[in-house]
Amino acid sequence: MQSDNPTAAILLIGDEILSGRTRDLNAHHLAGILNGIGIDLREIRVVPDDHAAIVGALRALDRHLGGDWDMVFTSGGIGPTHDDITADAVADAYGVGIEVNADARRMMEERWTRLGMEITPARLRMARIPVGATLIENAESAAPGFSIGGAHVMAGVPSVFRSMVEALVPRLNPGRPPVSRTVRVERPESDVAEGLREVAAAFPDLSLGSYPFREEGRFGTNLVIRGLDSARVEAALAALGTRLGL
Amino acid sequence: MQSDNPTAAILLIGDEILSGRTRDLNAHHLAGILNGIGIDLREIRVVPDDHAAIVGALRALDRHLGGDWDMVFTSGGIGPTHDDITADAVADAYGVGIEVNADARRMMEERWTRLGMEITPARLRMARIPVGATLIENAESAAPGFSIGGAHVMAGVPSVFRSMVEALVPRLNPGRPPVSRTVRVERPESDVAEGLREVAAAFPDLSLGSYPFREEGRFGTNLVIRGLDSARVEAALAALGTRLGL
Repeated sequence: MQSDNPTAAILLIGDEILSGRTRDLNAHHLAGILNGIGIDLREIRVVPDDHAAIVGALRALDRHLGGDWDMVFTSGGIGPTHDDITADAVADAYGVGIEVNADARRMMEERWTRLGMEITPARLRMARIPVGATLIENAESAAPGFSIGGAHVMAGVPSVFRSMVEALVPRLNPGRPPVSRTVRVERPESDVAEGLREVAAAFPDLSLGSYPFREEGRFGTNLVIRGLDSARVEAALAALGTRLGL
Repeated sequence: MQSDNPTAAILLIGDEILSGRTRDLNAHHLAGILNGIGIDLREIRVVPDDHAAIVGALRALDRHLGGDWDMVFTSGGIGPTHDDITADAVADAYGVGIEVNADARRMMEERWTRLGMEITPARLRMARIPVGATLIENAESAAPGFSIGGAHVMAGVPSVFRSMVEALVPRLNPGRPPVSRTVRVERPESDVAEGLREVAAAFPDLSLGSYPFREEGRFGTNLVIRGLDSARVEAALAALGTRLGL
């Protein structure tokens, strides 16, 4: 699909995903939102809770560090425990210091006071933010995420991640959302492959995908047409209908 | 966690994951299996159906191509349609040709004959295999995956992916599976952070992770201890119980 839309990557940070203990929910959630605001998600990576792995991935992914994409959304590793090393790794990657951020501390103290919770060193650890970063509000549990360079650094707990994404999205520079049409056919993918190939060749500005499925022992295929121009998408849909006799 | 286990990456190939249309099931499935046979999954990447992106990821991930890990398991892009470009990209990455493989063709023809299906150019496209690769059987729908260099190339459809994984696993060189113990505490993560940090420092050969959760408005934490030596894991579990008063 041809597009001048801004590009992005998602970087998930966490041993628990790589060990198979936890199934990630955040990448799929954010992928749908980015698609809807015309930000072109080009890559997802999952790395362990390891300083060098996080720094290396940020360098590879964020254009501000010489990497490939305009923005990187991270998830995980900003909690209060010893294995939460994302904020330090991010500070290192962007070459800035890290310190307790007064605004972050205030947000968290307001909540703790309301809940009658103590201010402990472990809790204050979550107010440590790379110098120069902008905070991302967390309506769920107060401890904020932050943005620096092209990176938007968010929590791994799904409810907190979603709350941060909600706060962040209005601040992002959006693109032109793609239009998508899906046709479900009750034939195996190999039966529609040639027709699909011909239509795809006639519409090089669009993306035509085919996704086989199996239901009750029978094979079928979802054909998905995506593009930025809805008239072109409709024209490809009509061409596909004619070619495949739908 | 200290380990001499073989290392691996998973490479998911597919626009539909990046657009948010499809939620991947395969990485989590394989991550659990690799953990159980002592293969250390160190990275997951998702890239689009794009030749350069696939070749670039294989070079970055497979030690045989100068990349980081001993093995790479791919999922997606080996079907019969024009957007199934994984086999060609893999052949290119490993510098070999690609041609219709006689064994792959036979496997598929046996099935098609049994089902009364025609042999079409689109179906035969799935028998195109990089020269020198070893086939991975597919009990689900016949068209095989293949192994070449450190790469094991499998289908994206979950039922087919699982069938191929089942065929492949007995051929992999396993490591020593980690032992894992989980303790659930009904306290927020920040309350256990200091005790956890102390125990983690006393057991540098183990991995201690903490995973916060929220249930019915209350915060709790799962503490996970992983390591290769079960006596050490039990010792850390006892130390954690003492330190946190569990």
